[in-house]
Amino acid sequence: MEPQVKRLKTWHAVPMSEMARNTFNPIRSIVDGMKITPNPKKPMIALSIGDPTVFGNLPIPEEIDEAVIDKIRSHKYNGYNPSIGYEEARQAVADYTSSHDAPVTSKDVILTNGCSSALDLCITVLASRGQNILIPRPGFSIYKTLGESLGIQVRFYDLLPEKSWEVDLKHMESQMDENTAAVIVNSPSNPCGSVYSRQHIEEILEVLERNRIPMIADDIYEHFVFSENKYHSMASVSKTVPILSCSGLTKRGEFKHFSQKLFLVPGWRMGWIVVHDRSNAFHEIRIGLNSLSQRILGPNSLVQSALNDILKNTPQSFYAETLEYIEDNAKLFYKLISEIPGLKPVKPQGAMYMMVGIDTENFTNIKDDVDFTEKLVSEQSVFCLPAKCFQYPNFFRIVLTIPKEKVETACERIKEFCDLHYNGDSRSYISC
Amino acid sequence: MEPQVKRLKTWHAVPMSEMARNTFNPIRSIVDGMKITPNPKKPMIALSIGDPTVFGNLPIPEEIDEAVIDKIRSHKYNGYNPSIGYEEARQAVADYTSSHDAPVTSKDVILTNGCSSALDLCITVLASRGQNILIPRPGFSIYKTLGESLGIQVRFYDLLPEKSWEVDLKHMESQMDENTAAVIVNSPSNPCGSVYSRQHIEEILEVLERNRIPMIADDIYEHFVFSENKYHSMASVSKTVPILSCSGLTKRGEFKHFSQKLFLVPGWRMGWIVVHDRSNAFHEIRIGLNSLSQRILGPNSLVQSALNDILKNTPQSFYAETLEYIEDNAKLFYKLISEIPGLKPVKPQGAMYMMVGIDTENFTNIKDDVDFTEKLVSEQSVFCLPAKCFQYPNFFRIVLTIPKEKVETACERIKEFCDLHYNGDSRSYISC
Repeated sequence: MEPQVKRLKTWHAVPMSEMARNTFNPIRSIVDGMKITPNPKKPMIALSIGDPTVFGNLPIPEEIDEAVIDKIRSHKYNGYNPSIGYEEARQAVADYTSSHDAPVTSKDVILTNGCSSALDLCITVLASRGQNILIPRPGFSIYKTLGESLGIQVRFYDLLPEKSWEVDLKHMESQMDENTAAVIVNSPSNPCGSVYSRQHIEEILEVLERNRIPMIADDIYEHFVFSENKYHSMASVSKTVPILSCSGLTKRGEFKHFSQKLFLVPGWRMGWIVVHDRSNAFHEIRIGLNSLSQRILGPNSLVQSALNDILKNTPQSFYAETLEYIEDNAKLFYKLISEIPGLKPVKPQGAMYMMVGIDTENFTNIKDDVDFTEKLVSEQSVFCLPAKCFQYPNFFRIVLTIPKEKVETACERIKEFCDLHYNGDSRSYISC
Repeated sequence: MEPQVKRLKTWHAVPMSEMARNTFNPIRSIVDGMKITPNPKKPMIALSIGDPTVFGNLPIPEEIDEAVIDKIRSHKYNGYNPSIGYEEARQAVADYTSSHDAPVTSKDVILTNGCSSALDLCITVLASRGQNILIPRPGFSIYKTLGESLGIQVRFYDLLPEKSWEVDLKHMESQMDENTAAVIVNSPSNPCGSVYSRQHIEEILEVLERNRIPMIADDIYEHFVFSENKYHSMASVSKTVPILSCSGLTKRGEFKHFSQKLFLVPGWRMGWIVVHDRSNAFHEIRIGLNSLSQRILGPNSLVQSALNDILKNTPQSFYAETLEYIEDNAKLFYKLISEIPGLKPVKPQGAMYMMVGIDTENFTNIKDDVDFTEKLVSEQSVFCLPAKCFQYPNFFRIVLTIPKEKVETACERIKEFCDLHYNGDSRSYISC
């Protein structure tokens, strides 16, 4: 029996799907809505882009190039590869990631199209529609974008600026219920530049253990910590909580056999998930990740094939140097911005970002962080991302990777801007 | 008020999500369930893998390599790129795709992580849960995998082997209702190797026009047609029906300024969507595609950056040659298999596949296509994919890209196998 089909007279607009409607990138929509018109008398300084390649001041070493070029010339890696990645490439990631406290093998590794795809797979495999996931506030906007597009409820847990952005543990636990499928934790953090201590990671894991909720660790900045801090991965601290760790070639470094240079190729879109199944709870999740990886069929074969060389043979020489470069920038930014009335930077401990609080109440004609950053561009040609993009109004984020000589100029201009517009007592703002 | 949280005593197995459960790759699950144990006395001939790189008989030209290598050495393309792709790369695709009958610009192009990701975006943007899409039977299994994983109902429309796999138009229309969000059409086809005539494309478009249902055209084998046929894209024929066309560097060729060599790099994962909006119906769909592309942030920047060079500068010299190579294989396969009792090949017109019917009723101890292909491996070390993988039992699919000298050996072995097991009157099977 043929069903009755309604015949339309003309082509109406074809509506987008529910999922497309629910896919919302706050950075894009906030930034697209802003008037970003620099002062034509001053050259633009963009402190907004978390991409270490834009200024050309952090070149990648030839070894990385040559590793990929060799594989291109070999003609052996042009074909389809297994959807979870070549065994050799997965082995390279396992060798790189495995540690005494968190041993893994190639069977625990799934390669993905960049770290955002790793996060997507992890959220997708753990949470169904109607369930919820917990994400940090402030936090990287992709967590919300991915979760909500899948019809998963996104709940925030607060980070505490006065405690170097540690998790408000009580608030985190208050957000959990029987429909909480996962908690995303990000350290070192974008946008905060915070690095959690072993003790604080233990506290977080205790909350997850008590509520039997698995963790998605966004480890993309792993090992990327400044000299006063020590990096601990969530997985190396966890005794029981099962963890899906997401990372990639995007922008990371390592002290042992890994060069800093790797965090310079985010466009290469090489990411991975490492399954740390502490309590034998992830049997089904492994199967699910495998199934889901077949939807899109894995990342670029050339970069995969070069992964072993990239992870093992890249010279270590530049790593400390680059990290030092960024740490020096961080210190300088922190010092100079601390002296600006109406602003309150939170000292970064790693990654490549710093958050700065704005005493908006005492600025003339400045409503909020979006307004502040908009006017800062039009008057001083310095562009910072308003932290509303990270669900955290009245802060802005600074990227620390710019050439050193621009740091001082940028801070001078920000100071000129605040001197002109700030009317409050900066000391009372800072102490509050 | 803190919600009451149920405390579990131990870590139970964490269940996979609904979407992971619904993500099902029939090829993987059928092939994984098969006993593929070749006869140790005969070297294996795999006629199963739609990957032209595996035998090494179809090398890619240096120009493609060098295009990518240049971009690696330039260090200009390591950063993040716009989620829909670099403007220059999108322009290259627009230049390559645009024609008198279907003009497009870079604004109509979205770059994706391979053609499967293009298909995923198109299905995702057009169909919501509870709606349905129509896909061909036999057809490439990814359509079903993608649709069902998203909670979209998948309905089949039949292709007619006796009409060179043209669409059964009445059956297609009978499957449509007010919840039909899109129809996927694939010509040249995997697994059929069929190429639709202009007239047949007009007939298909008439059905879609009458029911106001947009088309997703899987054009990954565009231009890949044998000498007796002519390629028409769906978009070049459509006067009113809006079409999202999916293609990529996976395995295509072109007669004008495009080398055959391109279909040799499927692992590079470079795909794209071209929006052909005949009736100004896709305004929202464009916005939706843009939003959805931000979930994963686009394909590898290096291959993107080399796209213009690859599409424009690769020498034409080898194209006709390679296509001829495959066409010769197709003719030989068709001729030799036509002579085998109990088998009925359907003559391919393009792409790189041929479907072969099996008169299973008259084979001794052979139930179906899975059984046939399993026993063919264990006795003759020839592996073909059972067409159950394409929702079409009692056929198997042959890949036409193998080295010529292996075609005869493979057919001899298949003949030996059928001579041994077939008991029917082959002529009556063929005429039926």
